[in-house]
Amino acid sequence: MTCAVVGLGLMGGSFSLATKDYFKKIIGVDHNKSHQEEALALGLVDEITDLKEAAKVADVIVLAIPIRGIISALKELSKTELKKDAVIIDFGSTKETIVNECPKNIRKNLVASHPMAGTEYSGPSAAIADLYKNRIMVVCNIEESGETQLKRAFDIFKHLEMNIKIMDAQEHDRHAAFISHMPHIVSFSIANAVLKQEDKEHIVTLAAGGFRDMSRLAKSNPHMWRDIFKENRQNLLDSIEAFKSELKKAKNMIENEKWDELYEWMKTGNELHKIM
Amino acid sequence: MTCAVVGLGLMGGSFSLATKDYFKKIIGVDHNKSHQEEALALGLVDEITDLKEAAKVADVIVLAIPIRGIISALKELSKTELKKDAVIIDFGSTKETIVNECPKNIRKNLVASHPMAGTEYSGPSAAIADLYKNRIMVVCNIEESGETQLKRAFDIFKHLEMNIKIMDAQEHDRHAAFISHMPHIVSFSIANAVLKQEDKEHIVTLAAGGFRDMSRLAKSNPHMWRDIFKENRQNLLDSIEAFKSELKKAKNMIENEKWDELYEWMKTGNELHKIM
Repeated sequence: MTCAVVGLGLMGGSFSLATKDYFKKIIGVDHNKSHQEEALALGLVDEITDLKEAAKVADVIVLAIPIRGIISALKELSKTELKKDAVIIDFGSTKETIVNECPKNIRKNLVASHPMAGTEYSGPSAAIADLYKNRIMVVCNIEESGETQLKRAFDIFKHLEMNIKIMDAQEHDRHAAFISHMPHIVSFSIANAVLKQEDKEHIVTLAAGGFRDMSRLAKSNPHMWRDIFKENRQNLLDSIEAFKSELKKAKNMIENEKWDELYEWMKTGNELHKIM
Repeated sequence: MTCAVVGLGLMGGSFSLATKDYFKKIIGVDHNKSHQEEALALGLVDEITDLKEAAKVADVIVLAIPIRGIISALKELSKTELKKDAVIIDFGSTKETIVNECPKNIRKNLVASHPMAGTEYSGPSAAIADLYKNRIMVVCNIEESGETQLKRAFDIFKHLEMNIKIMDAQEHDRHAAFISHMPHIVSFSIANAVLKQEDKEHIVTLAAGGFRDMSRLAKSNPHMWRDIFKENRQNLLDSIEAFKSELKKAKNMIENEKWDELYEWMKTGNELHKIM
């Protein structure tokens, strides 16, 4: 089988590395000239071409690009003659707009997926072969995908040693806001709060593991995250509101020296790790 | 030399493990009967006794207990006949009350320290030999410590392969609020926000590395942290306020769809890791 990987950054590049022995050929597609060169030099892909050319020969097309790019690519693919039973797998971080805006004539080809994996780094050189291993792959609205396509996609995800979770797109987007998007906003807020302090250099000399964890997400790519936040705006606002309400509660207890209540509130927080 | 380690939890236990070849004998002190037994069984200490007895024979006394416990212990030590040039090292998470409340007659003996190290686990069984390795040891108000005591304490910290940072106690407490105490409140707020959701079990199935990092501190011991928050209340409130103001800014930009401003705000946040 031939696979076209569209977007040769961390996600697409890591997918290529992990499926080299699965596909006979991997064709890379990327707008960015230097990503093209890097991906070839690193041996992530066998050749580079454009989406139209790649789509004609690919059995599997992976869209590892931002959400708006995925929607444009789907529109272009709907006007291209695809191979019979071609599978389109998108890795968009939000799923509702994608399943809603996918052209009807290729809806059966699409398997709307979201790998719960990543690092704070980006670009082809950030690619790692085991990025997907043992991670969750969420697959949304599977009743709208073709049976053959779904079967092939699941086989690839199993090859990646991923755990498949089936979910409604709307539900996925709400969950992703809590588990990923809001925590990014929080991490960026911590980073900016420290950077505003006059003695910031002095403050960070004290950073140990806890602070490194809490500020790691603030290394993330602002371009990519702006697009995700834009796409999932209402769910993000709801999850920020839920977080803010807890923070406010904590602040009031500290202000009013309600130490026993604060203790109980933390004890409740400890419970999270029992369900994770 | 003989060392008395008061408090045989994560910090005291790890200190014992890392200084076994430095001291001839390590005496353990702990109110908690099961900690005493565990520490002996794990070979963290050579024997167990009480503070008064241990203080008479110890060249070095390490107070690895909560802040209020440290202050009580210092009061008891001020009424005990210590060995000549005995060094008292406290590991309190806030330093101002400790240096202020230390009885004058033993102020020269005290080297007020705070190791920037830890894990989310506690108790003697959580002790690890390399907890302190390559971490920062903050030492406060050194002009109030005796020269011999300071020299001995620094020698021990170097044996632990720690990097020593000298700081004013007041400054330390402000910095610690930003780098450690506020991030704990934030992590507990994230945990509680998710736990309040009806579909919490479903939400956490999506948890990847980012969420695990952001919620790890919410595993911390509520008892210990209540005491730290109590001790550093005003600095904590100030740092929560600084964080909240950034969060509010982000929320407003998302609400009003100021995506380019949000991009710039994140780009600024990226800068943190250049100074860390």
